[in-house]
Amino acid sequence: MGKMMGSQSIRFDRPPLIIGEACVVGPKEGEGPLARYFDRIWKDEKDGAESWEKAESQLTEQSIQMAVRKAGVKKEQVRLLVAGDLLNQLTATHFGVRELGIPFVGAYGACSTMGLSMLIASAMIDGGFADITAAEASSHFCTSEKQFRTPLAYGSQRPLYATWTVTGSGSVVLANEMHRPAHAVRDVVVTGATLGRIVDYGVKDAFNMGGAMAPAAADVLLAHFQDFDRKPSDYDCIYTGDLGYYGAELLAKMMETEGYLLEGHYRDCGTLIYDQQLQDTHGGGSGCGCSAVTFAGYLMHKLRSGKLGRILFVPTGALLSPLSTQQGESIPCIAHAVAVESRHSKIRTAERS
Amino acid sequence: MGKMMGSQSIRFDRPPLIIGEACVVGPKEGEGPLARYFDRIWKDEKDGAESWEKAESQLTEQSIQMAVRKAGVKKEQVRLLVAGDLLNQLTATHFGVRELGIPFVGAYGACSTMGLSMLIASAMIDGGFADITAAEASSHFCTSEKQFRTPLAYGSQRPLYATWTVTGSGSVVLANEMHRPAHAVRDVVVTGATLGRIVDYGVKDAFNMGGAMAPAAADVLLAHFQDFDRKPSDYDCIYTGDLGYYGAELLAKMMETEGYLLEGHYRDCGTLIYDQQLQDTHGGGSGCGCSAVTFAGYLMHKLRSGKLGRILFVPTGALLSPLSTQQGESIPCIAHAVAVESRHSKIRTAERS
Repeated sequence: MGKMMGSQSIRFDRPPLIIGEACVVGPKEGEGPLARYFDRIWKDEKDGAESWEKAESQLTEQSIQMAVRKAGVKKEQVRLLVAGDLLNQLTATHFGVRELGIPFVGAYGACSTMGLSMLIASAMIDGGFADITAAEASSHFCTSEKQFRTPLAYGSQRPLYATWTVTGSGSVVLANEMHRPAHAVRDVVVTGATLGRIVDYGVKDAFNMGGAMAPAAADVLLAHFQDFDRKPSDYDCIYTGDLGYYGAELLAKMMETEGYLLEGHYRDCGTLIYDQQLQDTHGGGSGCGCSAVTFAGYLMHKLRSGKLGRILFVPTGALLSPLSTQQGESIPCIAHAVAVESRHSKIRTAERS
Repeated sequence: MGKMMGSQSIRFDRPPLIIGEACVVGPKEGEGPLARYFDRIWKDEKDGAESWEKAESQLTEQSIQMAVRKAGVKKEQVRLLVAGDLLNQLTATHFGVRELGIPFVGAYGACSTMGLSMLIASAMIDGGFADITAAEASSHFCTSEKQFRTPLAYGSQRPLYATWTVTGSGSVVLANEMHRPAHAVRDVVVTGATLGRIVDYGVKDAFNMGGAMAPAAADVLLAHFQDFDRKPSDYDCIYTGDLGYYGAELLAKMMETEGYLLEGHYRDCGTLIYDQQLQDTHGGGSGCGCSAVTFAGYLMHKLRSGKLGRILFVPTGALLSPLSTQQGESIPCIAHAVAVESRHSKIRTAERS
């Protein structure tokens, strides 16, 4: 059963375990510095699909299926799946999961979706509503650029601060202790979370996502530190989702103004996923898939091996739509913080007995 | 703390109370048979807003603010709000709630959204993650028709089986027993829910929503009856969201084939909200707002007065997007079932002491 912490956080008294994770990415991500951590790398942006949207649905289906398989459970055992993407009406997700037959929660938090879906999927376990759940998020460079910015065929030049939408889907399968893999040396558990509020500082440039989202990241970090009485150094590292180089710098400055030094305890997934020099990705990676695959691939690898002990995962989302941009609106943003820990299974087994 | 029931249902052991509800609707809904149950009826489709989308955001903000006020709490006390609408990237919701400062969960379930948001908002209370939450859903005739079908200015003729998107927003505020209004004669509580799965029978006609969604409604009803070992007559009435006349008839037939007679225990919100003859609404009402305002207005009125004792609220959603229609895809659908009961407060107080 959960506990309310401070003003907007929750603590899990029986922390859900991440029992399986998987990520499937596009070719560009597969040429980046995190390549070795991805479960599957596509040779092209379509993987045989008829359209980019259908390709994104395939990313989704493949990563969920793989995470379920790696968790050692059957998809019929998954009591609910929380998932989303960036497309209108969650097109990629709905068509990607429709064959699975898993009770479904559609979540929209733009690029913060992986944080939101993990938070809900974890709460449903700790609250006793499910024993096994799954969380997923995806994005696709071609579907997103076409939808939010300009048709790809235009070949429009992008400003240097623009980020590059990640083609990829990341999934995790969560479970209560009853479904803990017997062989696990370490448990990776979700210990708590802070649900974000919508923050809008008036940024209207749909290329400047990092600048728009940094205040929302700062807002949820401040709430998290206050609600749990923690500071940045209580985490091995804090990982925001896709602020990119400029947004990450801005966040660090905003937090410093508030008295919190992130230095040495902070990275942004958007700055990890591509090689900025070699891959011409300008401001860094972005999209729901950016934080989702970095978490399910790279971060889970570090957590499983014990190289990371306690992290705060903070996917960030820009809640604009093509329509709100056309109507001259600014960009409301949100970020959700999820605390994840790696623990020795044996110690916990001993504690319990 | 919640309990898993059967394959896809949950039971609330400490059923969350609905402590406040409100609905704001457009002029056409205000001329319909449920007019007296609506808290506010707009004189036109815009209420002074610059665009239809901004008008829908105003609907959202007004109904949430009013529900919070009627609940006798401050918005700062609401620990999380689960809400959504039909527009690309939940435009209406994000811009409608951005000033509220309430931790936010964006939910997308097309017209099933009110069921999904009530399910999550209830689970977060019963699970101990929040003491006060809110759930909302909205739709707007002009924003939806423009987005999913044809530009309104075309004046396209609609087939007789097409439904009419409701302009309206419905909100409920949920709370645990600690925040139970002292004066309440009756409690209205959420006792359990069944989370739906995506069902796609291959319907491709974006006007024939009722036909597309009926199988999803049947799927969740069957699961609900099995999981809780109940039958239709265990409810005073089952209310689907927006199947309309044709979809409701189809659902009743499908359920009969499965051995469940709905007759006398079943209505569809889409057949209640307009006068089919006088208002020229063809197949009935639809949209997230259809079930949301019918619930927050009409059904809550009957529950509060005790005229309804136990109902099953089953909003239904068609998970298509303009893009999936253009790409020739069929329509995946989903429905979620939420069980709501009206109880004498005094009896419960006596039971507890």
